[in-house]
Amino acid sequence: MSSPVRVLGIDPGLRRTGWGAVTVTGTKLAYVDCGVVTSDGDLPLALRLRELHEGITRVVTGFQPDEVAVEETFVNKDAQATLKLGHARAVALLVPALHGMPVFEYAANLVKKTVAGTGHADKAQIQAMVRFLLPKAEFKLADAADALAIAIAHVNHRDAHALRKAHLPAGVSGRAAERIAAALARQG
Amino acid sequence: MSSPVRVLGIDPGLRRTGWGAVTVTGTKLAYVDCGVVTSDGDLPLALRLRELHEGITRVVTGFQPDEVAVEETFVNKDAQATLKLGHARAVALLVPALHGMPVFEYAANLVKKTVAGTGHADKAQIQAMVRFLLPKAEFKLADAADALAIAIAHVNHRDAHALRKAHLPAGVSGRAAERIAAALARQG
Repeated sequence: MSSPVRVLGIDPGLRRTGWGAVTVTGTKLAYVDCGVVTSDGDLPLALRLRELHEGITRVVTGFQPDEVAVEETFVNKDAQATLKLGHARAVALLVPALHGMPVFEYAANLVKKTVAGTGHADKAQIQAMVRFLLPKAEFKLADAADALAIAIAHVNHRDAHALRKAHLPAGVSGRAAERIAAALARQG
Repeated sequence: MSSPVRVLGIDPGLRRTGWGAVTVTGTKLAYVDCGVVTSDGDLPLALRLRELHEGITRVVTGFQPDEVAVEETFVNKDAQATLKLGHARAVALLVPALHGMPVFEYAANLVKKTVAGTGHADKAQIQAMVRFLLPKAEFKLADAADALAIAIAHVNHRDAHALRKAHLPAGVSGRAAERIAAALARQG
């Protein structure tokens, strides 16, 4: 039996960043924990980002994930909203990278399609599927359910990533491996 | 004679983040250093943000600024470009905040107006004024000159910030002081 892999999903947002922790052992998925990290809207932006940094740092140091999955920002016509999300997302990508954890990015519609079968699934459908796939999950906020969905999506796609890694030439590691992995991911 | 205040200006960009360090003693401005922090476009986004984090951390721990000024992101119609800039800018705001340094934000046109007299000044005008105000400045890249311009703009506006701080009730500090300062800044 293979050893459990710890996967953390993150759904970034400046006001509320959702996180969801699962393990996968072979094909068996198990719920660990979930929650949200918040920032105080009355504070200046730099201090809000520091709050997110501290909160996400607590999550990654507490759970110690083997792999982290972050939702890609949905770029819409509201440039200011896109920018705010970009600020929060940068912290979500940065913190696990600072801890040497591999970070994977998933488009929102791929997450929805993987978890609920359609890229246009609404929040209620996503939450119903998360409850079905992780019966022990307890979440009060949609952001935490979304983060669990991102973790589930990564579990379903991580074999493809593993295959790409296995194709790396022997003895290639560190920066060179990261470049090659990135190039392979683009070839996708 | 008042003691020198160390001011760091940052012009965020995902590929190249410019930085410029000056001191101000009373009304006397002096050049210290400037440069750029780069990230490798071949790496995944999380690792590029880690590179910026490491580079900006080296700058702030080396220079130990008393105050940091960061340019506000210009939101344009290219949402993807806005998003990339937002990611880089989050790191530029976050790193000094993690070191407990106060961070101030300035709109690009306010920086231009302060340094060159018009909010529509072009890069050449900005560079000419930076050379005039800081004759000892040596910069090869426009990003470093822009960062020095941001530092100069902050030096010109910091008295107004100091006044706001002086208006805080006695004994108010930490989180409460930050909230009040933010509220005062919004009242402008």
